[in-house]
Amino acid sequence: MKVVSFGEIMLRLSPDGYYKLFQKPELNTSFCGAEANVAVALSNFGDEAEFVTALPDNDIGRAACRELMRYGVKTDNIVYTGDRLGIFFAEKGASQRPSKVIYDRKNSAIALAEPSSFDWEKIFDGADWFHITGITPALSDSLAKISVDAVKAAKKAGLTVSCDINYRSKLWSAQKARPVMTEIMKYVDVCIGNEEDAEIVFGIKAGTTDVTKGQLDTDGYKKSLQTVAETFGCKIVAYSQRKSYSASDNGWSGIIYDDEKKQVYTSAQYDIRITDRIGGGDAFASGLIYALHNNISPANAIETAAAAGCLDQTLEGDFCLFGINDVIDLAGGNSSGRVKR
Amino acid sequence: MKVVSFGEIMLRLSPDGYYKLFQKPELNTSFCGAEANVAVALSNFGDEAEFVTALPDNDIGRAACRELMRYGVKTDNIVYTGDRLGIFFAEKGASQRPSKVIYDRKNSAIALAEPSSFDWEKIFDGADWFHITGITPALSDSLAKISVDAVKAAKKAGLTVSCDINYRSKLWSAQKARPVMTEIMKYVDVCIGNEEDAEIVFGIKAGTTDVTKGQLDTDGYKKSLQTVAETFGCKIVAYSQRKSYSASDNGWSGIIYDDEKKQVYTSAQYDIRITDRIGGGDAFASGLIYALHNNISPANAIETAAAAGCLDQTLEGDFCLFGINDVIDLAGGNSSGRVKR
Amino acid sequence: MKVVSFGEIMLRLSPDGYYKLFQKPELNTSFCGAEANVAVALSNFGDEAEFVTALPDNDIGRAACRELMRYGVKTDNIVYTGDRLGIFFAEKGASQRPSKVIYDRKNSAIALAEPSSFDWEKIFDGADWFHITGITPALSDSLAKISVDAVKAAKKAGLTVSCDINYRSKLWSAQKARPVMTEIMKYVDVCIGNEEDAEIVFGIKAGTTDVTKGQLDTDGYKKSLQTVAETFGCKIVAYSQRKSYSASDNGWSGIIYDDEKKQVYTSAQYDIRITDRIGGGDAFASGLIYALHNNISPANAIETAAAAGCLDQTLEGDFCLFGINDVIDLAGGNSSGRVKR
Amino acid sequence: MKVVSFGEIMLRLSPDGYYKLFQKPELNTSFCGAEANVAVALSNFGDEAEFVTALPDNDIGRAACRELMRYGVKTDNIVYTGDRLGIFFAEKGASQRPSKVIYDRKNSAIALAEPSSFDWEKIFDGADWFHITGITPALSDSLAKISVDAVKAAKKAGLTVSCDINYRSKLWSAQKARPVMTEIMKYVDVCIGNEEDAEIVFGIKAGTTDVTKGQLDTDGYKKSLQTVAETFGCKIVAYSQRKSYSASDNGWSGIIYDDEKKQVYTSAQYDIRITDRIGGGDAFASGLIYALHNNISPANAIETAAAAGCLDQTLEGDFCLFGINDVIDLAGGNSSGRVKR
Amino acid sequence: MKVVSFGEIMLRLSPDGYYKLFQKPELNTSFCGAEANVAVALSNFGDEAEFVTALPDNDIGRAACRELMRYGVKTDNIVYTGDRLGIFFAEKGASQRPSKVIYDRKNSAIALAEPSSFDWEKIFDGADWFHITGITPALSDSLAKISVDAVKAAKKAGLTVSCDINYRSKLWSAQKARPVMTEIMKYVDVCIGNEEDAEIVFGIKAGTTDVTKGQLDTDGYKKSLQTVAETFGCKIVAYSQRKSYSASDNGWSGIIYDDEKKQVYTSAQYDIRITDRIGGGDAFASGLIYALHNNISPANAIETAAAAGCLDQTLEGDFCLFGINDVIDLAGGNSSGRVKR
Amino acid sequence: MKVVSFGEIMLRLSPDGYYKLFQKPELNTSFCGAEANVAVALSNFGDEAEFVTALPDNDIGRAACRELMRYGVKTDNIVYTGDRLGIFFAEKGASQRPSKVIYDRKNSAIALAEPSSFDWEKIFDGADWFHITGITPALSDSLAKISVDAVKAAKKAGLTVSCDINYRSKLWSAQKARPVMTEIMKYVDVCIGNEEDAEIVFGIKAGTTDVTKGQLDTDGYKKSLQTVAETFGCKIVAYSQRKSYSASDNGWSGIIYDDEKKQVYTSAQYDIRITDRIGGGDAFASGLIYALHNNISPANAIETAAAAGCLDQTLEGDFCLFGINDVIDLAGGNSSGRVKR
Repeated sequence: MKVVSFGEIMLRLSPDGYYKLFQKPELNTSFCGAEANVAVALSNFGDEAEFVTALPDNDIGRAACRELMRYGVKTDNIVYTGDRLGIFFAEKGASQRPSKVIYDRKNSAIALAEPSSFDWEKIFDGADWFHITGITPALSDSLAKISVDAVKAAKKAGLTVSCDINYRSKLWSAQKARPVMTEIMKYVDVCIGNEEDAEIVFGIKAGTTDVTKGQLDTDGYKKSLQTVAETFGCKIVAYSQRKSYSASDNGWSGIIYDDEKKQVYTSAQYDIRITDRIGGGDAFASGLIYALHNNISPANAIETAAAAGCLDQTLEGDFCLFGINDVIDLAGGNSSGRVKR
Repeated sequence: MKVVSFGEIMLRLSPDGYYKLFQKPELNTSFCGAEANVAVALSNFGDEAEFVTALPDNDIGRAACRELMRYGVKTDNIVYTGDRLGIFFAEKGASQRPSKVIYDRKNSAIALAEPSSFDWEKIFDGADWFHITGITPALSDSLAKISVDAVKAAKKAGLTVSCDINYRSKLWSAQKARPVMTEIMKYVDVCIGNEEDAEIVFGIKAGTTDVTKGQLDTDGYKKSLQTVAETFGCKIVAYSQRKSYSASDNGWSGIIYDDEKKQVYTSAQYDIRITDRIGGGDAFASGLIYALHNNISPANAIETAAAAGCLDQTLEGDFCLFGINDVIDLAGGNSSGRVKR
Repeated sequence: MKVVSFGEIMLRLSPDGYYKLFQKPELNTSFCGAEANVAVALSNFGDEAEFVTALPDNDIGRAACRELMRYGVKTDNIVYTGDRLGIFFAEKGASQRPSKVIYDRKNSAIALAEPSSFDWEKIFDGADWFHITGITPALSDSLAKISVDAVKAAKKAGLTVSCDINYRSKLWSAQKARPVMTEIMKYVDVCIGNEEDAEIVFGIKAGTTDVTKGQLDTDGYKKSLQTVAETFGCKIVAYSQRKSYSASDNGWSGIIYDDEKKQVYTSAQYDIRITDRIGGGDAFASGLIYALHNNISPANAIETAAAAGCLDQTLEGDFCLFGINDVIDLAGGNSSGRVKR
Repeated sequence: MKVVSFGEIMLRLSPDGYYKLFQKPELNTSFCGAEANVAVALSNFGDEAEFVTALPDNDIGRAACRELMRYGVKTDNIVYTGDRLGIFFAEKGASQRPSKVIYDRKNSAIALAEPSSFDWEKIFDGADWFHITGITPALSDSLAKISVDAVKAAKKAGLTVSCDINYRSKLWSAQKARPVMTEIMKYVDVCIGNEEDAEIVFGIKAGTTDVTKGQLDTDGYKKSLQTVAETFGCKIVAYSQRKSYSASDNGWSGIIYDDEKKQVYTSAQYDIRITDRIGGGDAFASGLIYALHNNISPANAIETAAAAGCLDQTLEGDFCLFGINDVIDLAGGNSSGRVKR
Repeated sequence: MKVVSFGEIMLRLSPDGYYKLFQKPELNTSFCGAEANVAVALSNFGDEAEFVTALPDNDIGRAACRELMRYGVKTDNIVYTGDRLGIFFAEKGASQRPSKVIYDRKNSAIALAEPSSFDWEKIFDGADWFHITGITPALSDSLAKISVDAVKAAKKAGLTVSCDINYRSKLWSAQKARPVMTEIMKYVDVCIGNEEDAEIVFGIKAGTTDVTKGQLDTDGYKKSLQTVAETFGCKIVAYSQRKSYSASDNGWSGIIYDDEKKQVYTSAQYDIRITDRIGGGDAFASGLIYALHNNISPANAIETAAAAGCLDQTLEGDFCLFGINDVIDLAGGNSSGRVKR
Repeated sequence: MKVVSFGEIMLRLSPDGYYKLFQKPELNTSFCGAEANVAVALSNFGDEAEFVTALPDNDIGRAACRELMRYGVKTDNIVYTGDRLGIFFAEKGASQRPSKVIYDRKNSAIALAEPSSFDWEKIFDGADWFHITGITPALSDSLAKISVDAVKAAKKAGLTVSCDINYRSKLWSAQKARPVMTEIMKYVDVCIGNEEDAEIVFGIKAGTTDVTKGQLDTDGYKKSLQTVAETFGCKIVAYSQRKSYSASDNGWSGIIYDDEKKQVYTSAQYDIRITDRIGGGDAFASGLIYALHNNISPANAIETAAAAGCLDQTLEGDFCLFGINDVIDLAGGNSSGRVKR
């Protein structure tokens, strides 16, 4: 049974290493997007995964699709329409220098797609899980409507629905996000996020936490998780927790609330020397979905999620190019980084 | 006295050598655009050149501006507005394989610019030449209006006005182009183009010429040149002539009509082993403008134009990174390519 | 209905441009193999294609498989076994300098594969065409047996069988090749090759042709084609014809014999400025198979084959990364290489 | 009102990442020089900056000039003379391995320049600040004389004069440096340096500090600052303070003495994970000059200086490619390195 | 008097930086092998070094030989035989992600070499030291025999014999290794290794040490060293000690037992920010051999060994491209990594 | 018996492909020099070759030496002195665009070397051939003297002396060259050059030949060859003949005069599609020296010379990285450039 995810896939353009954009004339291309990253990770972990989106019918759209196919993601329900693929310029920070991102994603094929382009009943045939994030409905009014259509149809078709809140202030205001996300959350079984997003989007406060200082208030976290679960009737709510020491070094862990047992579990914390932090949250979501989809307990699932997110940040690019065994190995405590020979 | 040119500058993304787009994950960046190419070439030739455009106020817009400044082009009247820089994906052909171009230039800062953004009287202060091409009015209705404003103002301020017809069927239809270009041509002293464009845009036929076969009917060319000059009252009309043997090898020359003397002159023909043909026409225009701007006779100007266009196509990228001495050397007959040591 | 091909896929390691191996420390990786190239080309042309092979169960084998998936090739019947992927070092020649190839393909997973690993009946379910080349049976005695098994099974299952003779003197002697290839040819409907191979492997002479001098005796070719068809009962026999002017410039065309009509057709000849000639023959085979598989007449099929082979040689790498429209465009006579904008 | 700086700009050749020189055959080129770095940084911060030097009239000299123009630095008073641009080979250290520098800067255009080449009165027209470092007078006897001419002329023209002591033992002995630098210091308002240089060049001791151990004696620093100010009559003396934990990790901060208020202020300390430490001191000087030039208080100026120096070391190359807002952001305490999206 | 080492040299293929294998299509080539690394390091340190192996007589074998010659290693006794050079794919880990190694070294020229290919008496003429590691006898039964022949002949010729245990579980089992290594150890004067290998190969236990946790039991180490010395009659036994904090950060030191004085000495410990850890152990061995070969005391030799091993891990590739002065500088305590200018 | 050559080896810095210098920030490094190129080629062909020069004792000088050692060239008599290695910036031309060279070689270690640094008697021990070119005496007065010393000593020691006239107008005037070269020619047995150099340096005219037009007057050539032989008493005089069609395409051949038989022989002519023409003349000299040194007849030697020169120009870089079999293969008429597989 497959996991379907829906959203935007973009062309990412990044300079080498720690150069700034246009400091050298070469850019590295890759393809990325919150839900696309999840589809690729799940396929690499061994799940059957399908990604649904709209792509322009040109060499750029086809290249995006090929990159998904390369990792075994199903692409049969991708719609070819529109003029352009969204572009995402990203320059890596280092030490005290922040990473920098420039979006050029307006008017992309998916942002301009119509509700009628997607036949959700057909798409969900043979699927048992649907994943979406808060980025997708933020892209256009049409996509907000399509996103609601999708989660409704998924629920109706008996799929488990997961949603990563993923609030992006550059895409929409909290004011605009709240009613849309609230509508979507009605259909969500597994909610993924962090306490900042929960507060901004839903006004659910976690207590005093200042992430720029790396201080985390665990009790506040727990309260936030539980409130989300109760407000929206989610079975599982999980947050990734990032301590931003600098652009080069982050603390990283996860916390999960199991509504059935009313229990909270926290993962091991990883002090990560970061290679590329973009995509870490999506790998966290992927580890969580994989685990829950494969009937791993919430307590273990949060370890899988944290380990997947950690590994992803030690690698260039958004995509999580690890097998599930690599993730389980790290989740099991093997973090010494010794050579595998 | 400076030459002002006005139009779009885009980010060009190209794979290395003879790879296809996305065959390898790296892309080379450069900046280009018909009128920007002319500004850079003129500055490299030793003229004072200024480029006017609208750029987004982000690292991509600033990088475009820096690339112009790098070659000494004045950028004081560039307007910062809008969201994005147009993008131009280009993959080089080889032998029987054609080069391939994908435009992602809609909704660029310049395409969305308003007529009120440009104070032409102020811009033309200290200038004696204005250059534009048929690409700029094709980008939006607003730009069509701005382009007409610009040539009118230039004429009023006593500048010589040059225009490269540069018809692009992907940007507008011949039907839409004709009235706009006809209006612009009223103010043009020096018209640059080729006989195909003259026929498509103005319906001025040249006789039987099949460029894909590399056959050129010189008499037909002459008739076309003269008709353009007479129809629009141009002093000079010049065409570049390309014989497309293959993507790797082209014949290249120029032909010019001097309305004062009612005389036609043709340049030497170059058989070019092509490195990167994009920008060749703009370098041709630059050589012509430089020559006429510096009081070189039409007969010699067409040699300068053809040599500049030839050299540009032996180099990677759109920009013509040669000094005027390099151009004059080739125009003078030194085409043996011997090492300069 | 899909086309199945079977053989080896190798890791190709090549220096940039016209450098020699190890002149610079970077090598470009790609994946290639005569039958794999055909599968990728057919998928790019729009056919459903599947590639069958054996791969080692490590990151190298998986990367080979991913590269096939990237272009939509089905890989469901690939067997994971053995220790290593064959490696193919290739350095491009230029002008009078020949290209150079070093095989390190012994003991590869496919070379050591057992007949029992492949259930041909199951593999051919849903297929209507099977393609193999003379390279596969040359790799090991086991593969010679498996190859015969495969063509027999294909025939039995009602598939059209195509075989590219592809004699490689570094892999086996003509003496060893003849009985194996003769056995395989019994089941072949469409034979692809060139007159040299026909002479070496089957002793079928074509008349006086000296390919190193670029002289071709068309009558000799015709005789060779017909003899092959009659000897082995093939419906179609097609040869690619390469005139080796130098490593940089080749003449290229095709000739086909239609046994039903007892008719010979020759294609247009292309003078190719070569980017990477390796894989040209496989693209020729792909164009031919695509055409015949889609009921295009032999006279047109040889044009499709020649155009596909031509385009492939204008591009880096073995894989033919063109759509069928690109091929048809060239086959239709558009060889001017003008920019597609 | 513009800031003029004067000195050498060199071609820097560096291997990628943590390779040694010539371990791989590619080198990255950039242009650098203590005073050129300051001009580029000031222009990026938003000040008007001009750089004065002598360059050879060839493609290398022109490339150096273009790199300055690219960042908006004025180059109108650059003199074209001499044969060569100085070259600077630099290989980055890592962990316990020190960075390594090879100078090939003898007989450069600037080192051989004559006093008569520079008309300081004209150069300083429209300027209100002049910056030089102790590297320039070290390059040749002629440059020592020119440097003294320049500071005298600057003083006479009413400019604020800043000087970074920048002692380089490979260029001259302390014995040779002392009288020249002492003469220059007579005209200096803002002295930049560190306590090591003050001791070596001027014999002004700071107390017991062992930089290789990362131990800093703040009181000693203060005494050194004050003594410099009093000895030479400077209004401001500022030191950068580097704790060399290893080639990969450094502590970094600044300390400033305000002679008017007889007050010492220290900046925040940054623990930097270093990308490229060369140019950090020049960025420190640039932050200081920018701040003082824009009437920021000494207490805040030393924060600006330290933050600019810190950011520069997180980026490849010497040039400080940040806007003043990036610097102010960090100086204001935002050092978490979170993604700007 | 020269040092001869004997073993395999492989082609190493590695992706750039922190990319995974085949994530990008380029690989960096270098040549490596435990004993070859030692030969190169010794030559760079200033000793005369010779490397003996078997290479295929093709461009790959010759490239390996040239890379040795480049660093002054003598190659006169290399035998040209066999088909292939062993290949070693290596991808660098980062933080919690382990480095990954894929061997494709079976059937290499050296693995298939015959005892009769090496005339040890001739090879050892003019030599006073022989070095081998436990990797070489693990490669094939033939090499196990040749390795024993070599150490016997070395002993007979009066050379000092050093051996690095270097147990590789992917090459042979402990069961198979023990008798072979025990036979070799009879002739070994200087044994190099670590306590894990001593336990696995010889069953000599060191006490409770868990390297993955970074905990080291120094007493246990001492016991292990002494037991090895006494069991096999070695004069010197030295271990490198690695604390694996993560793939990016390791603790690194050495410990040595001097059988003559019955004394144990430990080196300084280095906390290394790792650039490329592969080859660190070989550089450790090289530092040790160099020191002892040049009559440096065991107490100082272990410092030389640890410093050489540390430096090697701060550099890309296996080869230790430092001069002995660089090593002595670090061994002498200068680990601040300050720029050498 | 070995061939000794003497001269300068420089660091060559070149942009990729057909980019201009500094158009992209990366440069490719290689090492080159007329006599060094000959030493490397001879060693690759199988002769014992030694190169004598002076190098700075730093990482750049050592890298130059290592590059020679890599190809088996003896370097025992290289002197370490001076400050810098000469640098040679080279940008490749294409089609009508000439290649461009910038020398930064003044004050190099070799240019400043003293006659006393070279003990020619010792250097020539074990040698039977000495090679020098007209570039070396042009570098400094001291080198002019050293060059004369060397040829005298070579003659005295019974070596065959070859000299390539190699006139470089950027290094010295014809007026300055004539007496020095005339003195050197007294000791030369084998003179290599072209008719232009013979005319400029010695005033020996060849008749009407205009190389820029690709017209060659064979009779004129013959006269020039014979006059040189008779004037200076040379046994062999050989010219390379280049027809400069363009920077991309050259005609290439050789002509030789055998004074013993008073006979002239011409080689095959190659139409070369040029990869990198620099070094072609040195490869020509190498092929000639190899042939004569190995007792091949003048008629065959000129074929070897022309083929070696041709192959070199199909490869990036100066060095001729071919085996003698590759050269003989081409000289034997195999110029079809077919893949060697």
